[in-house]
Amino acid sequence: MTVRAAVAGASGYAGGEVLRLLLGHPEVEIGALTGYSNAGQRLGALQPQLVPLADRVLAPTSAEALAGHDVVFLALPHGQSAAVAEELGPEVLVVDCGADFRLTDAADWEAFYGTPHAGTWPYGLPELPGGRAALQGTRRIAVPGCYPTAVSLALFPAYADRLAEPEAVIVAATGTSGAGKALKPHLLGSEVMGAMSPYGVGGGHRHTPEMIQNLSAVAGERVGVSFTPTLAPMSRGILATCSARARPGVDAAAVRAAYEKALADEPFVRLLPEGQWPSTASVYGSNTAQIQVTLDAAAGRIIAISALDNLTKGTAGGAVQSMNIALGLPEETGLPKVGVAP
Amino acid sequence: MTVRAAVAGASGYAGGEVLRLLLGHPEVEIGALTGYSNAGQRLGALQPQLVPLADRVLAPTSAEALAGHDVVFLALPHGQSAAVAEELGPEVLVVDCGADFRLTDAADWEAFYGTPHAGTWPYGLPELPGGRAALQGTRRIAVPGCYPTAVSLALFPAYADRLAEPEAVIVAATGTSGAGKALKPHLLGSEVMGAMSPYGVGGGHRHTPEMIQNLSAVAGERVGVSFTPTLAPMSRGILATCSARARPGVDAAAVRAAYEKALADEPFVRLLPEGQWPSTASVYGSNTAQIQVTLDAAAGRIIAISALDNLTKGTAGGAVQSMNIALGLPEETGLPKVGVAP
Amino acid sequence: MTVRAAVAGASGYAGGEVLRLLLGHPEVEIGALTGYSNAGQRLGALQPQLVPLADRVLAPTSAEALAGHDVVFLALPHGQSAAVAEELGPEVLVVDCGADFRLTDAADWEAFYGTPHAGTWPYGLPELPGGRAALQGTRRIAVPGCYPTAVSLALFPAYADRLAEPEAVIVAATGTSGAGKALKPHLLGSEVMGAMSPYGVGGGHRHTPEMIQNLSAVAGERVGVSFTPTLAPMSRGILATCSARARPGVDAAAVRAAYEKALADEPFVRLLPEGQWPSTASVYGSNTAQIQVTLDAAAGRIIAISALDNLTKGTAGGAVQSMNIALGLPEETGLPKVGVAP
Amino acid sequence: MTVRAAVAGASGYAGGEVLRLLLGHPEVEIGALTGYSNAGQRLGALQPQLVPLADRVLAPTSAEALAGHDVVFLALPHGQSAAVAEELGPEVLVVDCGADFRLTDAADWEAFYGTPHAGTWPYGLPELPGGRAALQGTRRIAVPGCYPTAVSLALFPAYADRLAEPEAVIVAATGTSGAGKALKPHLLGSEVMGAMSPYGVGGGHRHTPEMIQNLSAVAGERVGVSFTPTLAPMSRGILATCSARARPGVDAAAVRAAYEKALADEPFVRLLPEGQWPSTASVYGSNTAQIQVTLDAAAGRIIAISALDNLTKGTAGGAVQSMNIALGLPEETGLPKVGVAP
Repeated sequence: MTVRAAVAGASGYAGGEVLRLLLGHPEVEIGALTGYSNAGQRLGALQPQLVPLADRVLAPTSAEALAGHDVVFLALPHGQSAAVAEELGPEVLVVDCGADFRLTDAADWEAFYGTPHAGTWPYGLPELPGGRAALQGTRRIAVPGCYPTAVSLALFPAYADRLAEPEAVIVAATGTSGAGKALKPHLLGSEVMGAMSPYGVGGGHRHTPEMIQNLSAVAGERVGVSFTPTLAPMSRGILATCSARARPGVDAAAVRAAYEKALADEPFVRLLPEGQWPSTASVYGSNTAQIQVTLDAAAGRIIAISALDNLTKGTAGGAVQSMNIALGLPEETGLPKVGVAP
Repeated sequence: MTVRAAVAGASGYAGGEVLRLLLGHPEVEIGALTGYSNAGQRLGALQPQLVPLADRVLAPTSAEALAGHDVVFLALPHGQSAAVAEELGPEVLVVDCGADFRLTDAADWEAFYGTPHAGTWPYGLPELPGGRAALQGTRRIAVPGCYPTAVSLALFPAYADRLAEPEAVIVAATGTSGAGKALKPHLLGSEVMGAMSPYGVGGGHRHTPEMIQNLSAVAGERVGVSFTPTLAPMSRGILATCSARARPGVDAAAVRAAYEKALADEPFVRLLPEGQWPSTASVYGSNTAQIQVTLDAAAGRIIAISALDNLTKGTAGGAVQSMNIALGLPEETGLPKVGVAP
Repeated sequence: MTVRAAVAGASGYAGGEVLRLLLGHPEVEIGALTGYSNAGQRLGALQPQLVPLADRVLAPTSAEALAGHDVVFLALPHGQSAAVAEELGPEVLVVDCGADFRLTDAADWEAFYGTPHAGTWPYGLPELPGGRAALQGTRRIAVPGCYPTAVSLALFPAYADRLAEPEAVIVAATGTSGAGKALKPHLLGSEVMGAMSPYGVGGGHRHTPEMIQNLSAVAGERVGVSFTPTLAPMSRGILATCSARARPGVDAAAVRAAYEKALADEPFVRLLPEGQWPSTASVYGSNTAQIQVTLDAAAGRIIAISALDNLTKGTAGGAVQSMNIALGLPEETGLPKVGVAP
Repeated sequence: MTVRAAVAGASGYAGGEVLRLLLGHPEVEIGALTGYSNAGQRLGALQPQLVPLADRVLAPTSAEALAGHDVVFLALPHGQSAAVAEELGPEVLVVDCGADFRLTDAADWEAFYGTPHAGTWPYGLPELPGGRAALQGTRRIAVPGCYPTAVSLALFPAYADRLAEPEAVIVAATGTSGAGKALKPHLLGSEVMGAMSPYGVGGGHRHTPEMIQNLSAVAGERVGVSFTPTLAPMSRGILATCSARARPGVDAAAVRAAYEKALADEPFVRLLPEGQWPSTASVYGSNTAQIQVTLDAAAGRIIAISALDNLTKGTAGGAVQSMNIALGLPEETGLPKVGVAP
């Protein structure tokens, strides 16, 4: 099978990572590359790491440019995907790396994003219960947010087995690429290096309702989430420290067993051996998420920690993994499991 | 007044920072500098940033070397302070940057440090209720751990005003200098850069009982703590994200008021204006701790975040601040409030 | 003496560092703070590290705002200083951190900056031969560029003693603050971390004629310069690796002697003991420049390396040091010699 | 063809990178993994990024463990390769990532390494004139040093076309992984971050004679080298800034033409379009070297700059590329051309 793929938003970080992965995908041929303000520029000037595509020139994002492909990846600012997707036929697989179609609750969408809800597409996190089935054969995929991917993978085994009270506390650190290429003063290198700084504190981050949606679906009851994201002095990576009060009677063995059961066969999630903890450095550039869990008996809490690369498993890798499932390709095709370290 | 000060453990990070501050202290004359394996070496080869002391040579740590000073700073590995302190007279102010005399509960000490409890000294965190009074005129000071300083400053106003349930969840990121100069593989630059990684997860970190001790004293009841420390890719700085369930009826105004009341007059703690969040970059090299707090109404939690320099306010600056109080000097003498940024 | 000082351009990196140093200067009282696009904002939102000035509000840069001060520091984009300076009386000490008045040769200025030459002011590098005399009593100071400071300090002893051929090859690495707070894509943290990248290669960097000017003046003949600047993944610091072919008959002892003679009494330049090499980490936040030199006998070249903080000794520290001389204050007043490390 | 490969020294940075690449090589099956002090440990504890090999246990390095493979990669400390290689039959392809067999001149070896010269093997830099021919069918390969790879690729076109005087000045920055996993104080993260620092200044670095050897062979006359390496605050990457005086009459067009001719068909060397400069960030984790060159007419020098990943093209990627040639496989097999960025 040769799949012809276009990427809208090829000059950004998500678009660049999609292209890096597609260049290593044996069944994909890269078609149109589009942009907005960067249309007309050589990709080599914008994404110098993508050597084989250096002489490709970005077209303006338009229905014409994106026509004639089997798959179209959208790596656009939030709110722009619906208009583009509408112009693509129902037979085209549209993989949206933006937020537009992730939430099932229109009120949540409107409260957090401030625009009308565009709808809900099958959710590209195959590891969640029922996740793969929802993706098979679909022609529309909503790629999860990077934080919700990290948090859902860390906590769903605890909620699937009813080990944890439905109130999770999450503090996560992200590399700066999670904020995109936006020219904002606080994202300058001089500001970022040496800085750990929180943002979106107090429930305001847009990924919060997505986490609640995922965990509640697994738990079968509403799971509240306190989420504090922090910006860390690194380009890539998310470390999500997640905890919840253990339900009465839950012991360490039950916790370990639940995680082993849930994650044992996952190709891209690695439950580490006991005593070894995740690190963003180990998953740099890979589609692997590392997970570890423990029970803090004194505090009565389950602590689950995940590390992943926000651009790979957290965005573009998750997108390609979901594409593989949708198209009936082997799920692991073209996706690196090995990190670039040190 | 001229205070003659010695530093035992002058080749390490804590000792070096004590010396940096003492060099800028108008009332201090720097006396003996001692070390163990580095005895006999020029300080300029070990701490090249301390230009005015470059030609000083480290003496072996001994009672003789440390005799004849008004103040002796101990920056030694845990467990070594008691023996050295015993040999110093009761009229000498001994400021211990190690953990040996921080805990009041011998069982806690033995459970977390594995050696017999050496005793308890006045605790060098003046901002805590009653903190200054305990330090005035003392000749023994236990400098708090860096994490307990960050966490206690962030949470004590909430517990002092009974705003929070007695169960705190804390996730903190530290720069690598917090781990000292120990030659361990995971502290190599190649491993650290690009890496966010947790350690001591699940209640095992030695600073946990110290946090519980501080917060419980303020709250008047036992406060449980779930503490997860993480190592961040930066040399200095702690960002502590602390939260606890708000007690029923507590609203945002009450939270703000409690923090303003508790922190308004503190010379080295800055409650930021609403909407501005702390960053480790802003307090680099300074004795200032930045604090911000909010109420996440949806999650029902108070979120308090502090940023400080683990070597300055978190260790050496707190030590000098406490020394000033003990000696009757103005508390702010010789201590930088301004960070080195960007 | 109390000197009343204003800072124009207080929201940028140079202006912020001037303020950090002035806050520690015992003879200075900080007056007006001005900006352009940031006028009207609280300094605490722009420079959160400057705690004591957090509630000061930036005035628009204007003659009125800057009137009534003894000293005015200009930290403005290149080309804007002349107009502001003209409005300040001759009795006011104007210290220009920009490039406008550094070059003596109008043709050089026009070739590299593309605007008419505004003139030449006394040059704020006291360590150069005749440097202090030129500054005493002056009311106009052109603060050197950060690279020219690093390079001139590293090489002037070799040229003063005619040890080196008049053709220098310089490769320097700078922290990103050297590029200012400009919102450019290549300065984003995501781009900068993990990146060493050159710029202005091939003779085009604007600091090149300034280096030629300084070294030629010392050598008494034209010294050619090949200068390659590189951007390093750190916020602050310059490491300048400078070399030139040794003149016939020059040996290692002559090189060492020349540097000891030239630098022995300098308060802010430290010639390191033989075998120890400079590091930007050792001079972080300090006004000290570290220098080391050696003779590569096999290659026939003198290699001189300097490390300094581009914002301190390279800009604001050099500015305050020159101000001290101009005002007849002790040269070292208010200037840190000790770096913040690690 | 299935090639069975062993790696001696699998716990170090070079060994880990060899394994990362071999895991993606379609013709290679990974056999024995050996170590010294780490023998008996799980690879997952030592190289957590190598997920598919996590449960492999390191054997002690010995002839028995390494027997029965088609290819053996040696990633050992300098001086240890000869003894291991001797025990492997002449039909086994031995790829030595160490220095032992790189130099042709025994006196150079002894002067720089202090041990008896072990001999000279075909040199694994295919891009040099005659480089591929020397590797075809060989069963012994000396992988070049990381710096000599970067420098030789940057300068050989200039010397091949006699454009440059035979005296090169090189200043290079390396990520810390170039220093290996050795537990040395100056390699600690706290020391490295924020630090640019030179080492081996003045001709003493062991890669200097290797550069001279390569460039002299291309030039047909002895090329002198002044080489200054510096340590940069990043894990991976080398940026080599290389210059030499242009021979009389050489102009910019001739320089460009020489580089285009020499590099146009190289699969792993990319001469950038004019005006675009290399960055280590663009080649992170890839086997691509980026090159740019210009003529500084005012200084009379050719400036050639290369960026590569010291562990990939600079070590393990170069090793696999050479292995491919030796075994008659397509040269590009299994080697990433695309960098992981940002």
